[in-house]
Amino acid sequence: MLKAFICGGSGYTGSELLRILAGHDEVEIVGVTSEKSAGLSVSELFPAFFIYKNLKFENLHIEKIKDRADVYFLALPHGKSQEVGALLVEANKRVIDLSADFRIKDSKVYEQWYKTSHSYSELLKEAVYGLPEIYRDKIKKARLIANPGCYPTSAILPLYPFLKKELINLDTIVVDSKSGTSGAGRKTEVTLSYCEVNEDFRAYNVAKHRHTPEIEQELSFASGKDITIDFTTHLLPLNRGILSTIYGKLNKNITTKEAIEVLEEAYQNEPFIKIMPEGQVPAIKYVKGTNYCYIGVVVNQRTGRIILISAIDNLVKGASGQAVQNMNIMFGIDETKALKNLALSP
Amino acid sequence: MLKAFICGGSGYTGSELLRILAGHDEVEIVGVTSEKSAGLSVSELFPAFFIYKNLKFENLHIEKIKDRADVYFLALPHGKSQEVGALLVEANKRVIDLSADFRIKDSKVYEQWYKTSHSYSELLKEAVYGLPEIYRDKIKKARLIANPGCYPTSAILPLYPFLKKELINLDTIVVDSKSGTSGAGRKTEVTLSYCEVNEDFRAYNVAKHRHTPEIEQELSFASGKDITIDFTTHLLPLNRGILSTIYGKLNKNITTKEAIEVLEEAYQNEPFIKIMPEGQVPAIKYVKGTNYCYIGVVVNQRTGRIILISAIDNLVKGASGQAVQNMNIMFGIDETKALKNLALSP
Amino acid sequence: MLKAFICGGSGYTGSELLRILAGHDEVEIVGVTSEKSAGLSVSELFPAFFIYKNLKFENLHIEKIKDRADVYFLALPHGKSQEVGALLVEANKRVIDLSADFRIKDSKVYEQWYKTSHSYSELLKEAVYGLPEIYRDKIKKARLIANPGCYPTSAILPLYPFLKKELINLDTIVVDSKSGTSGAGRKTEVTLSYCEVNEDFRAYNVAKHRHTPEIEQELSFASGKDITIDFTTHLLPLNRGILSTIYGKLNKNITTKEAIEVLEEAYQNEPFIKIMPEGQVPAIKYVKGTNYCYIGVVVNQRTGRIILISAIDNLVKGASGQAVQNMNIMFGIDETKALKNLALSP
Amino acid sequence: MLKAFICGGSGYTGSELLRILAGHDEVEIVGVTSEKSAGLSVSELFPAFFIYKNLKFENLHIEKIKDRADVYFLALPHGKSQEVGALLVEANKRVIDLSADFRIKDSKVYEQWYKTSHSYSELLKEAVYGLPEIYRDKIKKARLIANPGCYPTSAILPLYPFLKKELINLDTIVVDSKSGTSGAGRKTEVTLSYCEVNEDFRAYNVAKHRHTPEIEQELSFASGKDITIDFTTHLLPLNRGILSTIYGKLNKNITTKEAIEVLEEAYQNEPFIKIMPEGQVPAIKYVKGTNYCYIGVVVNQRTGRIILISAIDNLVKGASGQAVQNMNIMFGIDETKALKNLALSP
Repeated sequence: MLKAFICGGSGYTGSELLRILAGHDEVEIVGVTSEKSAGLSVSELFPAFFIYKNLKFENLHIEKIKDRADVYFLALPHGKSQEVGALLVEANKRVIDLSADFRIKDSKVYEQWYKTSHSYSELLKEAVYGLPEIYRDKIKKARLIANPGCYPTSAILPLYPFLKKELINLDTIVVDSKSGTSGAGRKTEVTLSYCEVNEDFRAYNVAKHRHTPEIEQELSFASGKDITIDFTTHLLPLNRGILSTIYGKLNKNITTKEAIEVLEEAYQNEPFIKIMPEGQVPAIKYVKGTNYCYIGVVVNQRTGRIILISAIDNLVKGASGQAVQNMNIMFGIDETKALKNLALSP
Repeated sequence: MLKAFICGGSGYTGSELLRILAGHDEVEIVGVTSEKSAGLSVSELFPAFFIYKNLKFENLHIEKIKDRADVYFLALPHGKSQEVGALLVEANKRVIDLSADFRIKDSKVYEQWYKTSHSYSELLKEAVYGLPEIYRDKIKKARLIANPGCYPTSAILPLYPFLKKELINLDTIVVDSKSGTSGAGRKTEVTLSYCEVNEDFRAYNVAKHRHTPEIEQELSFASGKDITIDFTTHLLPLNRGILSTIYGKLNKNITTKEAIEVLEEAYQNEPFIKIMPEGQVPAIKYVKGTNYCYIGVVVNQRTGRIILISAIDNLVKGASGQAVQNMNIMFGIDETKALKNLALSP
Repeated sequence: MLKAFICGGSGYTGSELLRILAGHDEVEIVGVTSEKSAGLSVSELFPAFFIYKNLKFENLHIEKIKDRADVYFLALPHGKSQEVGALLVEANKRVIDLSADFRIKDSKVYEQWYKTSHSYSELLKEAVYGLPEIYRDKIKKARLIANPGCYPTSAILPLYPFLKKELINLDTIVVDSKSGTSGAGRKTEVTLSYCEVNEDFRAYNVAKHRHTPEIEQELSFASGKDITIDFTTHLLPLNRGILSTIYGKLNKNITTKEAIEVLEEAYQNEPFIKIMPEGQVPAIKYVKGTNYCYIGVVVNQRTGRIILISAIDNLVKGASGQAVQNMNIMFGIDETKALKNLALSP
Repeated sequence: MLKAFICGGSGYTGSELLRILAGHDEVEIVGVTSEKSAGLSVSELFPAFFIYKNLKFENLHIEKIKDRADVYFLALPHGKSQEVGALLVEANKRVIDLSADFRIKDSKVYEQWYKTSHSYSELLKEAVYGLPEIYRDKIKKARLIANPGCYPTSAILPLYPFLKKELINLDTIVVDSKSGTSGAGRKTEVTLSYCEVNEDFRAYNVAKHRHTPEIEQELSFASGKDITIDFTTHLLPLNRGILSTIYGKLNKNITTKEAIEVLEEAYQNEPFIKIMPEGQVPAIKYVKGTNYCYIGVVVNQRTGRIILISAIDNLVKGASGQAVQNMNIMFGIDETKALKNLALSP
């Protein structure tokens, strides 16, 4: 049995790790931290997770935790993961960081968007961006995984094959994303309270969302050129799911059918990517509670634009499911283990 | 591999069987019917269920289906299951009927509440009411299971131990139940359309809901006396889940703690019953997507009443999950197989 | 123009007063307080209320506010209204208190349920319970109105005529109420955050909700005897509305039609009470955004119980709309002024 | 009293006319049609609209209705309005058509997108596009108003001033719109049923939505050049509201502040347009149940794009409210009459 430890288990990505790993028969959770809930058992905080009656939240002390597990998931706030990740790597542990701290290769870009200094720029270079569809080989051997952001996962996967093939004009990319409210975390803010979010819909952080440089970085790697995009995020009145609608001018005239072939060729062996047939586009309900990413595409012959639409569950493929997928890859376990369930529908 | 066949696979209980059995490694689905969608593959109708690309909906012809499987799930409308069930039993198949057709032992009571005649009153006697917590031994050998209704499951499980012990005045029982909208089925009615249900809440079928005689029958068996109850159903603006709030005058003065002990004693070995500790009551979110039934209890010393609260997922413990639990019991499979996942939360 | 002042304008009942009074052409709002938002204009906090660009939230200093208006609405937390109300009455102002502070005539009962001492038991006696359908004449001349709680409004209105006529066995009353989330106020609690409430439903404060003694007090006045009830509250995943399902054993055998006549006779001249015809029951969508109370009734001949169902908007007839109705009555304005709009539907 | 007649009163735009006009003290509704509900009174179909107890739905016979009113609202399906509108205009009545039948000036474009022939191309020329902010003077004297579509209202209002000033590159416009489910009408389709829409979000009619040519027509009028746009629509799990996020490359470098000034200058005298201050963007909750259109703007200096965001209630400013606004203008009534209420919030 692989021993896993979760740093930060009382938020939504932490509790989602607890939920997913409950169905993983090769992993044992040996510890979980939470500053706010230290002393409580997991089942006291989350009565739905009754199986964790004897697992207590503890405070995060590196010295007390660093010798107990094989793999550490960091579901900590941005800025806090840096040091914890560095110390655990130093202690020869393998780390999967669900925060943004090790995603941006250029520490100055990180500091500019996250308004936090970065003290581990060496480790930044070593960290592997944990998108298995692109970096599977590097993930196998990685000590430190920077688990991708939810929005970036939904934006990079559909665009990547088209940028690789230079099919889209790099100056024309617009990513219009909509996320369920769990993406904002388990927080006590009036703006996230039920009555405020219900029956509402709005954009937020327009032209300044922190996931922008992460998307731009990976798209730039794909195309070999620096890319700047417009990326707008919106808050959906539903719990789980991201749907991204992505626009770009095509460099050459292709049909919707040909666009689908580009996607199918790129992802034919990928267990978690599903390409929609012509005439159909993804819906959040197809992926709720699952690690799948559904992608659909339409070429608008009137405008010469490609419209790519992707759907993921922000807490699964957009966070904890992808983290477990990375863990499976790192430890030679079947990559789909504990991640094969179908969407809860309706 | 056990071979399973689903009669009626395009409604919510049918599709839920498809979802649950996708995670069952000892069962293979060999066929599924749907009058409306015959000819389509399951994945065409339900893109979320991509694994069923090669499973096509077919029309229900007994002769064409009766030799293909070991167990038949009937997710058909009330009234239609009778004959199909009878013919399959006659063909020496084991049948789990999710409709109400074989639940009411007295065919006259059935006919009075369901406004349909019953042509198989002999088979009614043989049919086993598929509530494992009460009838597990009979289920093991049953040829025909009458899978309980969703509301009755939520009402009978909390009340049963107290009626067995004659703790509640039989003339004072009120069951006030609230169900998510999937309980109404996958239908095309204006009253079930999104804009009508959303931001609304209402009672329906007041004093005449068809699940009333089913609850009364089982409670009467428990107490050994004829019981008449008030049972009111309401439509919740959410997809899944039933919460029942149940009232009755106590025959003798007991504390909340003692009431909890009654429940714990009755259900201590039950894998799917969870009793809340004192001071806590169940919530639908604890059971969403699961086969668990959470039960809480409060004794109001001011009024001498016991207040029992139960929560289930109407499509799982209230229908298809319980059906799979019954199948597991009937065929000597681990009773919890394919049913152990925790609630999707949030 | 009548001058109105709102103490506590940043919560949901306060902002609802602002919304309703925006449509009242005989009232001018001269001031509004908020400790948290003092200094902000109303339209800065609530961009939807753009007309209040020049109305600034201020701190609540009695000396600074007591000479500015004819009527003061107190939308303050329980416990805080007592002193403010007393000082304003002393300053010869007319006060409508939306908190519970002046609702319970017996200060000991108040202290027991609200865990707060009461320092104005004399004023308690003078305060008029602001349910116009029962106390209209007293309201006209009142200096201090104790505006009813949302749940009590929904429970008292349907039961009152039956208790007056001694038709219900007083020992058998059960009130099972379900409220939209705005009833919990505009708060920053994880349990009220969107992802926790959405797709969930649960009971809370079982057998100990603070509105219990308020309901019991008014029902006892109606019947002339001390009444104890079971009252259970539940949290609905929707913004506005309360639906109460009420049970009681009938003292004599009456039909549903006769029960409707009892209601129609009692409320025939009431502008805000709507009685449903036989065979129909109320829904929250009928009253969303309105001051109406819809009431339906079914007599269950099998059990001898009457089932009363009422629907109100908790923020309007359950709080701020009823407060404006009371103000209209107190100042000789058309009672329905600013309260005649139909439900926002869908 | 102006006499108004509603053709098609049982759908959502028809019932919204009934709701809004209930608060209009210079208009009397003299008749309403519905094929499905003919014979029922309005209050029987919609218990929330109890004031219409004596108004019965009737069948639509031109001869029987054409002499009864001064103004006729047509809330009929596309294709059906053409003839009804033509006959009423011929009978010297003033008509406000809420369908798309008279919106597209070029009947060939209409026929191509709506798959229906158009038999009144002469009347098409005369019809006035009922967007008061652009065509107020023509509306005053119009016999036939083509009331704008919901999406076009949300797209044209923010873009118009920028196209007039040639600030946006015409080849770069992308309109990404999200609509509440009432926009789909009061229909009996499984895909619009509660369980399907709730907790889901998806795009529909990608690159082929019928509102595309309507938007392109008005934007082309604004700029004096033929414009082709990408327009994508999505279905939001909420009842009311459209939020459109609009992208375009700027022809010259302006700041967000300057962009706001463009909007403020264009709409300074408009009673129903609200421009958000710098740093804020609109939300659907600001406009729920109202006739207002909130517009916000951000210039992204990194990409040279302008991002315009608008919010309207699709049933009010996007349909029936705008129709009443047009009626007010046509008959010399205060333009804001019956349309001044603030948003129902929360």
